[in-house]
Amino acid sequence: MKDHATTIYDISELAGVSIATVSRVLNGSPNVSDATRKKVLDAIEASGYTPNAFARGLGLNTMKTIGILAADSSDLYLAKAIYHLERELRANDYDCLLCCTGYELENRKSAIDLLISKKVDGIILVGSNFIYDTDEENAYIVEAARTVPVMLLNGALEAPNVYSITSDDYKSMYEAASELIDSGVTNILYYYNSISYSGKRKEKGFRSALKDRGVTVPENHLQYFDGTREDVPGMAAQLLALHKKGVTFDGVIAADDTLAMSAVKYARTLGLSIPEEFSVIGYNNSMLSTCSDPELSSIDNKLETLCQHLTATLMGVLGGADMPKITVFSGEIAHRKTTRPKTT
Amino acid sequence: MKDHATTIYDISELAGVSIATVSRVLNGSPNVSDATRKKVLDAIEASGYTPNAFARGLGLNTMKTIGILAADSSDLYLAKAIYHLERELRANDYDCLLCCTGYELENRKSAIDLLISKKVDGIILVGSNFIYDTDEENAYIVEAARTVPVMLLNGALEAPNVYSITSDDYKSMYEAASELIDSGVTNILYYYNSISYSGKRKEKGFRSALKDRGVTVPENHLQYFDGTREDVPGMAAQLLALHKKGVTFDGVIAADDTLAMSAVKYARTLGLSIPEEFSVIGYNNSMLSTCSDPELSSIDNKLETLCQHLTATLMGVLGGADMPKITVFSGEIAHRKTTRPKTT
Repeated sequence: MKDHATTIYDISELAGVSIATVSRVLNGSPNVSDATRKKVLDAIEASGYTPNAFARGLGLNTMKTIGILAADSSDLYLAKAIYHLERELRANDYDCLLCCTGYELENRKSAIDLLISKKVDGIILVGSNFIYDTDEENAYIVEAARTVPVMLLNGALEAPNVYSITSDDYKSMYEAASELIDSGVTNILYYYNSISYSGKRKEKGFRSALKDRGVTVPENHLQYFDGTREDVPGMAAQLLALHKKGVTFDGVIAADDTLAMSAVKYARTLGLSIPEEFSVIGYNNSMLSTCSDPELSSIDNKLETLCQHLTATLMGVLGGADMPKITVFSGEIAHRKTTRPKTT
Repeated sequence: MKDHATTIYDISELAGVSIATVSRVLNGSPNVSDATRKKVLDAIEASGYTPNAFARGLGLNTMKTIGILAADSSDLYLAKAIYHLERELRANDYDCLLCCTGYELENRKSAIDLLISKKVDGIILVGSNFIYDTDEENAYIVEAARTVPVMLLNGALEAPNVYSITSDDYKSMYEAASELIDSGVTNILYYYNSISYSGKRKEKGFRSALKDRGVTVPENHLQYFDGTREDVPGMAAQLLALHKKGVTFDGVIAADDTLAMSAVKYARTLGLSIPEEFSVIGYNNSMLSTCSDPELSSIDNKLETLCQHLTATLMGVLGGADMPKITVFSGEIAHRKTTRPKTT
């Protein structure tokens, strides 16, 4: 009847105890009653729980390896995340198996199958683009979590053995838009290039801020860039094409620093002075924000903190502790030279 | 007497045949005479060659995993290299264990020990900063290569079982400097932030070009930036401090695109028009070169090609083929908006 290998999840059901309790027993934790321990060990015996998985649970034969999945490890934001995660995991004596999956669901499924066949101790999905719109599409995450803990960096999904560490993109974007309006910029263009879980939260934050402050912008002031993620000249060309069509704006809120860089290019091409006549806020507070001239104000989403917290949570889970399923950090605006102070 | 596990290298010595021949025998290649095969199998029996390593050699129990070492996986250039390598290796059914080692020799040694204990099939050192000045320091590479093939991306070292895939940084920099001089810029500043193997080759190329064209610059026109690799504002500040001290120059050749970005900032601060009054050439042809305004002319060192070639070479070595020990590709200048055409 079962179409998958017996997992800690099955043992938990069979024994009628939580996954954390099974994990504690497997890890030889003293904080388990003898009766509970017996229930779990009986369930393990009754099930087909494999010696390998058992040994791994006991820490006897663990590979001490975590699988890291990212769409593209050379993306500025994802590369930083991988760097921080690798350092944190290494400090805990874990190795990292890196898989660059691109953005196709099928490739992600096979990467996860591969990692599980390699007996990794856990899987980290880096970036909210791993979360899809439907339960059916997200089933690959739920299924993987039946075997190993799955950590989501900046994505959220409620399922057993899945842990989400996110930055509050809604709130960050809400604050960025509010601040821009309060500085006297109301004819704002919102520029984005991702419709991921995080991308949608950002757009929602932007729309809410406008609504709460009674500001309206035409729908063509929400501009989607469909090109490659590093094509800053292409992004600038799209803004200039809008200008030629008569669409004007005196500020840009960008969902990524690359898009913000293109807005700076746009302003320079038109001879607009920044921030006196034109304001820009970027997102991610990447190295681009200080490369830019003038330097970009940008939302710092505390990536290093997220990675530290994710690793600590994963270590807790692997050690059998009860860990929070969802952790949310707040970002903050790093103010530089492309925004004006409040006028109010 | 031996202070390390028996390796393919020892078998090769013992049998009096090349490593490639031992590898062919272990891989069951038909292109080995019966006499040679017997010599190798006898040597294996006589030695303490471990069943694990033997099985790995036979491809029976290979982990199909390659260790990738990089100082910092979030560095623009290194992140791109890791991305391309991961894709190429994945296409060959190999996984990647990623280790970010920083720049300290001790950390590199322990990362390699760890990878070998994990029974990786090969090791890739990404970036020329893995090559040190002395044989003593580089012994860690020679030693690792006694167990697994070691691939150097953009570094060169002659040792058994070590393979180097490099871009000709000397030639690229020679051509960049020559071109700048031919466009009428002779008061050039050379700006660098690495004294790695590759960094030294670049500087040599710069000096040779000046010498061959009879151009001299004062020694303070070779400027070293000692700060963090992403601190573009700090790089610009150093150039402006030079200007204040009366050191002038009408063009910058940068050993990295970040340094080139800072030269563009410098020119803008002083109100110099690019490229009419001030020229800049960057290095690596990274995303920064198109982020920059005006877009940077930059040396394209063919990173993707290098990564493809490195992977093909490694696959050849693992398959028992004789592969070239050193492969050198030529870079070329990607011309954009920060350089003028030749005047001659």
